[in-house]
Amino acid sequence: MNHRFIRRAPPLKVVQKLAAKAILEGKLISEGDRVLIAVSGGKDSSVLAWALSILKRSLPFNYDLEALHISSDFCFCCQKGELMNSLESWGIGFTDLSVPIIGRLKEGRKMNCYWCSTQRRTELIRYAMERGFNKIALGHHLDDIIETFFMNMMNQGSLAAMPMVLKYRKYPLHLIRPLAYLEEQQVIACADELGILKTACTCPYGVNSLRRDARSKIAALTGNSSAVKRRILSSLLAGDLLHELD
Amino acid sequence: MNHRFIRRAPPLKVVQKLAAKAILEGKLISEGDRVLIAVSGGKDSSVLAWALSILKRSLPFNYDLEALHISSDFCFCCQKGELMNSLESWGIGFTDLSVPIIGRLKEGRKMNCYWCSTQRRTELIRYAMERGFNKIALGHHLDDIIETFFMNMMNQGSLAAMPMVLKYRKYPLHLIRPLAYLEEQQVIACADELGILKTACTCPYGVNSLRRDARSKIAALTGNSSAVKRRILSSLLAGDLLHELD
Repeated sequence: MNHRFIRRAPPLKVVQKLAAKAILEGKLISEGDRVLIAVSGGKDSSVLAWALSILKRSLPFNYDLEALHISSDFCFCCQKGELMNSLESWGIGFTDLSVPIIGRLKEGRKMNCYWCSTQRRTELIRYAMERGFNKIALGHHLDDIIETFFMNMMNQGSLAAMPMVLKYRKYPLHLIRPLAYLEEQQVIACADELGILKTACTCPYGVNSLRRDARSKIAALTGNSSAVKRRILSSLLAGDLLHELD
Repeated sequence: MNHRFIRRAPPLKVVQKLAAKAILEGKLISEGDRVLIAVSGGKDSSVLAWALSILKRSLPFNYDLEALHISSDFCFCCQKGELMNSLESWGIGFTDLSVPIIGRLKEGRKMNCYWCSTQRRTELIRYAMERGFNKIALGHHLDDIIETFFMNMMNQGSLAAMPMVLKYRKYPLHLIRPLAYLEEQQVIACADELGILKTACTCPYGVNSLRRDARSKIAALTGNSSAVKRRILSSLLAGDLLHELD
């Protein structure tokens, strides 16, 4: 991808081009796929939904799209009306599923990111399997992927990234991350242009402190240089860390 | 390895323990090996030579040791007399080989780290093959390994570390790095204790700027925490990046 194009192109075009590149290079979607988009109400998954709807026109295969939102028992800020309107205008059907994430905590246990994401993932998989979806699309971008890679390395001592494609052994199902080639700032610019940045919600628990700490240290390492971050992503691709079996 | 031991043990013991651990875990040396130590005159390879000589007494196999120093046409600071005395006192035979590193530069080419290390490596391999050595031991430590890993990732986009063991395809020869588990500060403390820190020479060209830059950025990333650096090394081991074929 021409870097001059990426720097100068309008935000919507950048997202389209880089999402298409990730989908084609990573073989994320194929003819006839039924793709369930996990929409949180946040900017990332909203931009993902928009991009997948737009790319239906240009990608050389057909696929179905539907969005699933999981409502929790601790976050009520999400402007679901706005989200539904956006998804409808992009031609994407929407389902809202209520899950008592805090309610399912065992007694004495505190709410945490790991618990919440495991509950959400379980529900996503269950819903996808019941309705015949074979792909679940998540809105993680390049900065999320790099962050997780460094956190795994520095906190766990393991060499593992958040894969662009994860094939479940137990289910006929893949997790895909079509925004893997996009930096957060490019996703933000696109969300802003689409007019959805202001209505996007964020988790009331905030970013956990380990992740916040990793984020600032990685910024010091890369100097926030796009070129450096892209080379780190290339190294993860070259080391085959972005295609995984679960 | 008990971390409390590592923090409190005397410097010589720390080097012995961690070098032995690397040699045993990484299968760096086996019965009957003929090991050629590349000694630059610097602290790292001097400590390596000392450690390998001491470990002959305790490791459960026999091996031969010899040291090769490559004298260049640009560095005359190395106090070879001191180095020879040290090696002799440790029972290690020493050879000095003169290589016109600048003299071999093609016209118009400037001296650089890559050229110098390639020339040295070529001469090391040639010498080892001619004299029947099957292992070449280099003095790189944990900080060197981490630094090179990050430089490969951030500057080249490749996921590759400096291996603890590298097996040459073309020759019956391995490169080994028995100080892989040691941090630079542990090597320095040992060199100081051995009384060789002051006589150790450093390259007159200094550390190259890319490496210096990487070093300070990695320090910002890890906060110079031993625990974090050791977890990064563990991740490279877990990802099988420290055993390689050339």
